[in-house]
Amino acid sequence: MAVNLLPPEPKSLHPVPGVELRVAIAGIKKPGRKDLLVMHVAPGAVVAGVFTRNRFCAAPVILARKHMRNSVRALVVNTGNANAGTGREGLKRALSVCESVAKKLECKATQVLPFSTGVIMEQLPSERLIAALPGLKPGSWLDAAEAIMTTDTVPKAFSAKLRLSGGEAVVTGIAKGSGMIHPDMATMLGFVATDARVAPAQLKKLVKAVAAKSFNCITVDGDTSTNDAFMLIASGAGVEVKSEKDKKVLEKAILQVAQLLAQAIVRDGEGATKFVTVKVERGRNAAECRRIAYAIAHSPLVKTAFFASDPNLGRILCAIGYGGIRDLNTDKVDLYLDEVLVAQGGARHPAYAEEFGVKAMRKPEFTLRAVLNRGKASASVWTCDFSYDYVKINAEYRS
Amino acid sequence: MAVNLLPPEPKSLHPVPGVELRVAIAGIKKPGRKDLLVMHVAPGAVVAGVFTRNRFCAAPVILARKHMRNSVRALVVNTGNANAGTGREGLKRALSVCESVAKKLECKATQVLPFSTGVIMEQLPSERLIAALPGLKPGSWLDAAEAIMTTDTVPKAFSAKLRLSGGEAVVTGIAKGSGMIHPDMATMLGFVATDARVAPAQLKKLVKAVAAKSFNCITVDGDTSTNDAFMLIASGAGVEVKSEKDKKVLEKAILQVAQLLAQAIVRDGEGATKFVTVKVERGRNAAECRRIAYAIAHSPLVKTAFFASDPNLGRILCAIGYGGIRDLNTDKVDLYLDEVLVAQGGARHPAYAEEFGVKAMRKPEFTLRAVLNRGKASASVWTCDFSYDYVKINAEYRS
Repeated sequence: MAVNLLPPEPKSLHPVPGVELRVAIAGIKKPGRKDLLVMHVAPGAVVAGVFTRNRFCAAPVILARKHMRNSVRALVVNTGNANAGTGREGLKRALSVCESVAKKLECKATQVLPFSTGVIMEQLPSERLIAALPGLKPGSWLDAAEAIMTTDTVPKAFSAKLRLSGGEAVVTGIAKGSGMIHPDMATMLGFVATDARVAPAQLKKLVKAVAAKSFNCITVDGDTSTNDAFMLIASGAGVEVKSEKDKKVLEKAILQVAQLLAQAIVRDGEGATKFVTVKVERGRNAAECRRIAYAIAHSPLVKTAFFASDPNLGRILCAIGYGGIRDLNTDKVDLYLDEVLVAQGGARHPAYAEEFGVKAMRKPEFTLRAVLNRGKASASVWTCDFSYDYVKINAEYRS
Repeated sequence: MAVNLLPPEPKSLHPVPGVELRVAIAGIKKPGRKDLLVMHVAPGAVVAGVFTRNRFCAAPVILARKHMRNSVRALVVNTGNANAGTGREGLKRALSVCESVAKKLECKATQVLPFSTGVIMEQLPSERLIAALPGLKPGSWLDAAEAIMTTDTVPKAFSAKLRLSGGEAVVTGIAKGSGMIHPDMATMLGFVATDARVAPAQLKKLVKAVAAKSFNCITVDGDTSTNDAFMLIASGAGVEVKSEKDKKVLEKAILQVAQLLAQAIVRDGEGATKFVTVKVERGRNAAECRRIAYAIAHSPLVKTAFFASDPNLGRILCAIGYGGIRDLNTDKVDLYLDEVLVAQGGARHPAYAEEFGVKAMRKPEFTLRAVLNRGKASASVWTCDFSYDYVKINAEYRS
């Protein structure tokens, strides 16, 4: 049951010139379900990306990182099998898929980036993927969003139009993941494309800047997958990014789409009943604000309090207290639930009554704001609550 | 429902000469329940301790740290109220309790160490504690263990006898806590006493060494309380610790008692149905082994897999992968469930079948062993699983 998240309106998703989408049913995990996506990009397209930092990274991650050095012509994504923890054989199989896609699209295997998500520690049934390639059919962005779903209950796709100095451009993106909840099944993948023409170095900067403010600001349970990736594609089929203003306009549009996608992953977190923004303000630097925000957002105690609409102050202050700021003056910390001031100067505010907190927390969406009053930096993290269903889904899965 | 943990046999708990225990019913939280403990120690007794690192530390923690510089004559512990997040008023009230205890025992207030556990952000009803002092009655170590319980379902006390060069000595300890599960109610407190005569500097070293291998090796949900403390008392009423061998014998006995107490806290973790030892071996240093062990033990995904007896390899390898060793060669990692080799060289062992893993995990106690094969260090962490009841207890608490 996703929190305030509906499937996208097909009309709202603008096609991206220079990016052709094709989907197929390869029968990897479930029969009759779209599970293979090929994104064919125009010659001259530029691709940049960020990948998981998990040391157990998957074979496709290793290959995609390597192939990104070349001029990329295609991205191939399968669900049902993550091709992680599969050793040399896994690399061979991922490469064989790239080779077959390259043959079909008349490019080199080293110009194809592979992505996989699904079961870990089982060999990729590459023969089935290869056999499905002739059956690839043109698809919409919604088809693409559906083709990469695993435990997701809602396809995730967003789109924006923007005006650059040379004319109009579009940004459209898809993502999958319900947080790192089924690590065999729920890697986070994000693909955002624009038709704008962007220089490679600029796109590299852009993907890092955007990831830091979108996909790197979400947490469902703190675990990090072996296959996580966020890719940014600039097909170059549209207008050129010329001025500094153009850069800013494009970054803003890409960030908007990426944030909506990232938030959609949290909204679709397994068992989630609440969508919570944890904002830490007036810290010395963004890094310490992020540490505190994650300490709050990762605490199972805080997350079960969210579920129960119980504004258990102690749990939140505790998390702030162990969030890793050694010289934190707790006497200066203020705490808000939406607009309700619950604690001021590290202690309960005299005017605060628990019913105000309960009222704020009963909503399916609210913001928890911790003000450190020791600087000017801030950071936000989006998270969800921790419900019976989280344990149920994760305990019953596979058993 | 505690995992393999029974209330202690009263006979098994040896009195500690030089430590007089007195308990009372102060009616702080629940009427008719022992909730006040005073430990009166002989003149010349030595006390050393370690406290929470949470920045939001409680008023009694601040005072106890300060008073420890003096020659300590008493420790006073109340349950029902943590006196945390209570500002200056909290300090005043904690001090007033010390003053009253000092008056009764004819010592100075600065020779009394206060400890509190219970609700956070509410003022300590010190007047009720003070009013209960005349009603203090001599009690056993079991009475003392019961007097400090909050959400604990089983009183926790262990005892050992040892032979030093000068004669026999005893070590007896009590603890409370079911992990940082109800942060308003379940601070971890541990008090271990010996009649052996130990020099202050030596006791200081001892408490740190023992804490590192006992109370600092447990986790239920990763949260750290505002009031956590572990105190070591050497009453000096017994034989002197003279030789290096004496030191070792004493440390061994104290460690044994402290480890049993620490493990008892995990066994009594709210909702726990499994007691799991996570052992990381052959790392470069103990710190990196601990990081990996905690990454595994804190992962909600791994913990729900424990609950389901589902040896979900991916979840465990994932946690190892994000455990913070940047240059970890995952191709060298082996993984065992008890004696079952599940993964070798970072991949599933050919002889491993899931039924072996399930069989190992179905037991109420098992060991998960990750062998990094990059050094000679090792570390262990004790943890429990994550069940429906964890969410139930924490979500329904107060609501």
